[in-house]
Amino acid sequence: MIFIRKIANRLSKKAGMSPGTLVHVGEERTAEPKITIIDYDRDNYQESIVENVEECFSYKDTPTVTWINIDGIHKVDIIEKLGKHFGLHPLVMEDIFHANQRPKMEDYDSYIYIVLKMLWFMDEADFKAEQVSIVLGNNYVLSFQEVEGDTFNNLRERIKNTKGKIRHMGSDYLAYALLDSIVDNYFIIIEQLGDMIAELEDRLIEDPSPETLQGIHDMKNELIFLRRSVWPLRELISGLERTESPIFKSSTSVFLRDVYDHTIQVADIIETYRDILSGILDIYLSSVSNKMNEVMKTLTIIATIFIPLTFVAGVYGMNFEFMPELEWKFGYLAVWIVFMLITLAMYLYFRRKKWL
Amino acid sequence: MIFIRKIANRLSKKAGMSPGTLVHVGEERTAEPKITIIDYDRDNYQESIVENVEECFSYKDTPTVTWINIDGIHKVDIIEKLGKHFGLHPLVMEDIFHANQRPKMEDYDSYIYIVLKMLWFMDEADFKAEQVSIVLGNNYVLSFQEVEGDTFNNLRERIKNTKGKIRHMGSDYLAYALLDSIVDNYFIIIEQLGDMIAELEDRLIEDPSPETLQGIHDMKNELIFLRRSVWPLRELISGLERTESPIFKSSTSVFLRDVYDHTIQVADIIETYRDILSGILDIYLSSVSNKMNEVMKTLTIIATIFIPLTFVAGVYGMNFEFMPELEWKFGYLAVWIVFMLITLAMYLYFRRKKWL
Amino acid sequence: MIFIRKIANRLSKKAGMSPGTLVHVGEERTAEPKITIIDYDRDNYQESIVENVEECFSYKDTPTVTWINIDGIHKVDIIEKLGKHFGLHPLVMEDIFHANQRPKMEDYDSYIYIVLKMLWFMDEADFKAEQVSIVLGNNYVLSFQEVEGDTFNNLRERIKNTKGKIRHMGSDYLAYALLDSIVDNYFIIIEQLGDMIAELEDRLIEDPSPETLQGIHDMKNELIFLRRSVWPLRELISGLERTESPIFKSSTSVFLRDVYDHTIQVADIIETYRDILSGILDIYLSSVSNKMNEVMKTLTIIATIFIPLTFVAGVYGMNFEFMPELEWKFGYLAVWIVFMLITLAMYLYFRRKKWL
Amino acid sequence: MIFIRKIANRLSKKAGMSPGTLVHVGEERTAEPKITIIDYDRDNYQESIVENVEECFSYKDTPTVTWINIDGIHKVDIIEKLGKHFGLHPLVMEDIFHANQRPKMEDYDSYIYIVLKMLWFMDEADFKAEQVSIVLGNNYVLSFQEVEGDTFNNLRERIKNTKGKIRHMGSDYLAYALLDSIVDNYFIIIEQLGDMIAELEDRLIEDPSPETLQGIHDMKNELIFLRRSVWPLRELISGLERTESPIFKSSTSVFLRDVYDHTIQVADIIETYRDILSGILDIYLSSVSNKMNEVMKTLTIIATIFIPLTFVAGVYGMNFEFMPELEWKFGYLAVWIVFMLITLAMYLYFRRKKWL
Amino acid sequence: MIFIRKIANRLSKKAGMSPGTLVHVGEERTAEPKITIIDYDRDNYQESIVENVEECFSYKDTPTVTWINIDGIHKVDIIEKLGKHFGLHPLVMEDIFHANQRPKMEDYDSYIYIVLKMLWFMDEADFKAEQVSIVLGNNYVLSFQEVEGDTFNNLRERIKNTKGKIRHMGSDYLAYALLDSIVDNYFIIIEQLGDMIAELEDRLIEDPSPETLQGIHDMKNELIFLRRSVWPLRELISGLERTESPIFKSSTSVFLRDVYDHTIQVADIIETYRDILSGILDIYLSSVSNKMNEVMKTLTIIATIFIPLTFVAGVYGMNFEFMPELEWKFGYLAVWIVFMLITLAMYLYFRRKKWL
Repeated sequence: MIFIRKIANRLSKKAGMSPGTLVHVGEERTAEPKITIIDYDRDNYQESIVENVEECFSYKDTPTVTWINIDGIHKVDIIEKLGKHFGLHPLVMEDIFHANQRPKMEDYDSYIYIVLKMLWFMDEADFKAEQVSIVLGNNYVLSFQEVEGDTFNNLRERIKNTKGKIRHMGSDYLAYALLDSIVDNYFIIIEQLGDMIAELEDRLIEDPSPETLQGIHDMKNELIFLRRSVWPLRELISGLERTESPIFKSSTSVFLRDVYDHTIQVADIIETYRDILSGILDIYLSSVSNKMNEVMKTLTIIATIFIPLTFVAGVYGMNFEFMPELEWKFGYLAVWIVFMLITLAMYLYFRRKKWL
Repeated sequence: MIFIRKIANRLSKKAGMSPGTLVHVGEERTAEPKITIIDYDRDNYQESIVENVEECFSYKDTPTVTWINIDGIHKVDIIEKLGKHFGLHPLVMEDIFHANQRPKMEDYDSYIYIVLKMLWFMDEADFKAEQVSIVLGNNYVLSFQEVEGDTFNNLRERIKNTKGKIRHMGSDYLAYALLDSIVDNYFIIIEQLGDMIAELEDRLIEDPSPETLQGIHDMKNELIFLRRSVWPLRELISGLERTESPIFKSSTSVFLRDVYDHTIQVADIIETYRDILSGILDIYLSSVSNKMNEVMKTLTIIATIFIPLTFVAGVYGMNFEFMPELEWKFGYLAVWIVFMLITLAMYLYFRRKKWL
Repeated sequence: MIFIRKIANRLSKKAGMSPGTLVHVGEERTAEPKITIIDYDRDNYQESIVENVEECFSYKDTPTVTWINIDGIHKVDIIEKLGKHFGLHPLVMEDIFHANQRPKMEDYDSYIYIVLKMLWFMDEADFKAEQVSIVLGNNYVLSFQEVEGDTFNNLRERIKNTKGKIRHMGSDYLAYALLDSIVDNYFIIIEQLGDMIAELEDRLIEDPSPETLQGIHDMKNELIFLRRSVWPLRELISGLERTESPIFKSSTSVFLRDVYDHTIQVADIIETYRDILSGILDIYLSSVSNKMNEVMKTLTIIATIFIPLTFVAGVYGMNFEFMPELEWKFGYLAVWIVFMLITLAMYLYFRRKKWL
Repeated sequence: MIFIRKIANRLSKKAGMSPGTLVHVGEERTAEPKITIIDYDRDNYQESIVENVEECFSYKDTPTVTWINIDGIHKVDIIEKLGKHFGLHPLVMEDIFHANQRPKMEDYDSYIYIVLKMLWFMDEADFKAEQVSIVLGNNYVLSFQEVEGDTFNNLRERIKNTKGKIRHMGSDYLAYALLDSIVDNYFIIIEQLGDMIAELEDRLIEDPSPETLQGIHDMKNELIFLRRSVWPLRELISGLERTESPIFKSSTSVFLRDVYDHTIQVADIIETYRDILSGILDIYLSSVSNKMNEVMKTLTIIATIFIPLTFVAGVYGMNFEFMPELEWKFGYLAVWIVFMLITLAMYLYFRRKKWL
Repeated sequence: MIFIRKIANRLSKKAGMSPGTLVHVGEERTAEPKITIIDYDRDNYQESIVENVEECFSYKDTPTVTWINIDGIHKVDIIEKLGKHFGLHPLVMEDIFHANQRPKMEDYDSYIYIVLKMLWFMDEADFKAEQVSIVLGNNYVLSFQEVEGDTFNNLRERIKNTKGKIRHMGSDYLAYALLDSIVDNYFIIIEQLGDMIAELEDRLIEDPSPETLQGIHDMKNELIFLRRSVWPLRELISGLERTESPIFKSSTSVFLRDVYDHTIQVADIIETYRDILSGILDIYLSSVSNKMNEVMKTLTIIATIFIPLTFVAGVYGMNFEFMPELEWKFGYLAVWIVFMLITLAMYLYFRRKKWL
């Protein structure tokens, strides 16, 4: 049930409203959105957390690269003010609020809008998906996340410590770095899922149980979800590569190709996992069949040996007045010999049938 | 049976007639069609229900945007008069009557013809599909529905109350708004179906029964139907986006992209649901197998314990004259000990086999 | 077996012959081919049945539209004479004879060759397929059918009675009308098959039997056959739409689009039927499983109740000399109480397992 | 096992060698290759079998059409000499030797290289595949076969007896005629397989046995093999159609279209057969299930009737001293009535369950 | 479990690092990388193993063809130095380290980067995959392998012994020869797998066991892995064919077409194997079903014969005082005749049912 909810959550909330009406669609949250500004160029670096959205406005036209990150998209007015100042189209603002977007990129001349899913593991067994919207302008990047906490800490460190080439590049490289960080994290998910599938396979061999089946089913649904997040990414990134927007410089393009390769790799592994899972399901079903077979064989062996014996015993339990065998001296012994012979015959028969 | 009828209903009625012959193909209805006219521009708004189709004619060439909505397509003469006045091609009129169209758009230079399915939930378990034909002219929109009642009430409110930008835009935006309203409603359907699938999954775990299977089958058919309505929409909308007709202004184009995204999202979720359903079916079949297994195990355990015991009891029920055990003092006790030992052996055997 | 024969019938007969060798490939027939000529323009109409194929020759270059229909393609010389006079390529003549063509269109500059399947219901349960070849020249249409009897009667009426626009249009419109008539008839087939599938579904719920399975299998094969006839039609018609031949006027093109839509609709419904059928098969298989389960449960309940009881009875049927219970006054009563208790315990166990 | 060998036979033999190294890869043979030369134009015809490959060399530049056919590709030196004289690329020679080529065509400016599979029935149940390489030069055709015996006898007759147009056409038409002859033979295979599938279906209904399953499996593998031979043919022939080589004249192109149609038809029927086979497999599996059901029902009916009866008999076989019924006069009669009643009750129960 | 690890091994290790950060991702190794230099032109040949990576630097600009092969990619500094000297892009160096690349080619103007999988059989049952990176410059080829040992020994011999044309060609031909050698080796894998599948099929017929199923499952996974290695190769090689880089001369292009054909052949056979395997799985499942059927039949036959007999014996074991049959002279004989008759009846019934 939880899985279905993930997919179709509150899809209908906005139906019937005017396009561009800003309504937050997603899980309800109460925390105040957190706005972080990182502003840098080759030589300078400045990081600040602001309370008031208006404090971001001045960064729009500075020559330095500015990264404004908003954790929490449930406060309509903050997003709206920011969006208006940075000239976002109403439909873009609507998409930022609507936390069920299909990954896509849209080129609005003066900025590029990117929306995708950030995934990370909450705990051992379940991963969490969060929608990230990225608005890439000429010298700024706005990023919108649903909650605090993300996969960008390494990136922040790199900017701060002048590690890598990021301080020498423009906002397009920053946007690429965000994408790269998100896609790299998919590999962690993929690896964890790989471990879980391997575990399923192990359990299958040791002791197949209905829980194994449930595990296969859950894993299948995880993969369906993951696939929905990853497949459109290919289109998204090749859209960025092909874009004619001057915001994305060709020097960044070669890096996009790298992310694109990673995306294909992830998509590829997901398909492979699906193939493997369907193989595991086949084995599970077949091993259930085999267990049934074994049960039936046991029953058949016991029953086919003892039913004839019981019949023979029943015969000599009859009370006919004239039953010559009953009076024989070695009748009882003879009947035991008959019992032995029947058992032996059956045993040989089962042997030949390879049931024993 | 009902489902099949939905798809292939009266398809053959028109076979053999001249193309353009106007015959209503769809469910028979008797109510008089209801004609509603909404005429507006930035400053004026006028709404009227007319009885006579001729009253619509004057709106064709006014500079204001006119939306003529006809509820009921079973009266041939009304549609014919309207069609002739607005210069509709005979094939378009035929398609309006024929309530089994595949969603499509056709560009007839002076107007664009759009036909698609409007879906809404009648009650908890079943949704209703109705064919909506939209004719988009330079400054008018004609919409044809099968019955009264639709998903456009919010839109009517927005026009009336000058909410949103609709009063500042042309007829193409109105057509877009109609499409948007219909597609937004698909999300409600999708969400409801999601709930129903979640419920199926729950029932599956608690108590799988043949009814669950029937439920899975019905849901599958609903999804097949839904898919048939949604898939062609993608082509329809991208056809509108690519059209070179001057009726569709480029300023409306960006909104179409939004509807297109929604359509893809709906189509995507439908595919996901299908994947999930097929997983649910696998679990159902496997749980039926498991129940069988359990039944067989019970039988086997009882039978394999008691059949040998019964045999032993049968042996000592034999009436041979010479059966030394019968005369032993502790024969009866011994036989009970034998019973116990056999039972214990069987119990240990089943334990090792993990059947207990 | 009959179905396979339909598909691969006499395919090999021609192997090894020179291309263009005229050999009739199809079911053997003996009746004399029937040649019907309908010649018309806006004002004149003339219909005649001729015995001698040479009588058709004069119509080739008249300005009126001439429709020459040949019922029966097994007489090589007639087709050959006609073909030679009308300048048909040897390969076209070969295709006309060869009654197993895949639907296709070929543009031979001075004429267009179209071949497709005409379908109609013979009786309630089985439909009949016949190959129709259409040669569309500048002002004539030749049509070749395997046997007398077709779906064109309505069309003939319309030409005769000046109903519809057909009398004002050229030979291309006539060819379109033939196509339209054939495709419209597919809807009747589709609807009938829909009824049969609905019936299968009903029978499935009431009483699934091996006959139901056979019915599903037959229906599947019917759909496979139908699909083979319909899918290539899409290519055929879009080939006609795209053709640069002056024979097909652009004014007829919009009508072709209509036939194309119908073809897509038919193909679409066939796919839907296949999906539904595979769902029905799943239900059938599962209901067979369920019946098995029920049988096994009955056996298990009876056996697990009575086998222990029989054992107890067997115990007191033993002939040990020293069996104290046998001498108890209420021994017999006690044993009945034991019987009752065992039965009750089993009953409660089955209850908890939900087998009762 | 045999089937797998057919596919992957000796694939690895050449690994690690320089490209163009001539090693025969295929089944080992010892017979001397047979070289046949047919040389003709409109008026002359000459046929000869030569022992020495050098005798072919003079035909390369004659204006007549020359068809050199080599039966047996295992003699490296013969092929090498011929190849060198006719200017074949080393890779082409390698492909001729390597009897596991995927059907393809390659345009080497001065000649076109075609390789495909020739199929024919050896006996009733199994068909034989042989690789045929065709080298089409300006006025010569070289054909290389694995063994003697082919499907070209009709063609040879036609050339000899001036039947058909072949004597008036160039070497490209000869190459087409070879292709046509090979593809026409596929229809014979297809028809035979159709018969075998029909037979499988018949056997299925009469008496499904594990042999039927093996038959289905074998047929499936035959179709897989056939498909591998036919699918690439489409590409091959459309490659020939599109080639800009002057060797293939446009007058021959229309004939290629005919072969292309045939190839599509064959491919189409193969797919249909696969669909039918999978339906047959479903029926087989289900009929196995049904037989199991019947077995179980028989057991259940017998057991559930007699187990309670046996219990009753067991009760009155007990040796309690005080058992009042035993002393009743009509006790024995009464117990028989009880037997009857139990049987009747069971019978009615089974009736209601529709097991009888 | 091992299989999953192969696919997703250490994918996540690099997540969060700056692009171009050199971290070896792959199995940990400790051996020192081995650097081999082969330098040749038409007349000269020189081979050396160097310890110090700087010794390679001088070969970059010599007119001779230089092949530098590095076995072991786990030493970051060696690769880094080499990469810097030869002007490799940081992302290329990253890909060389990262041993989980999807096969691909990338054109960096002054060199072409190719990465693919080299496969070979370790022992009878399992093949080994190793990533090979090839950097093709104007007159040098760098190749990077994970471990020592490869499929290039034949190639080295050919270069050394001036066999084949390789000594007359440039570095592009050398790169082709490497690709060719790797792809040729796939045929060995394919053939081995073919043998293993044939063996599976044999075992299936002789004695289907759960191990067979495990074997099918493992083989399926091998094929999935193989497919992942082979499919992207098609794109890789056609990328090389289409590249406009002057490094790849058109004279080498025809050889690429040959490799491309081989790749398609391998991919084709893999698909065929998958089809065959799924057929084998069907047979396995069905034969398990059949064995169950046989078990059930045995049980049913024994039980349905002896249960009624036991009942009859039970009847005459009752202790009623008045049981006339018991006193008949031939009562005992009669009851044996009854036993015979029941057995005979049952036997005939089973005969008719074809269970015996």
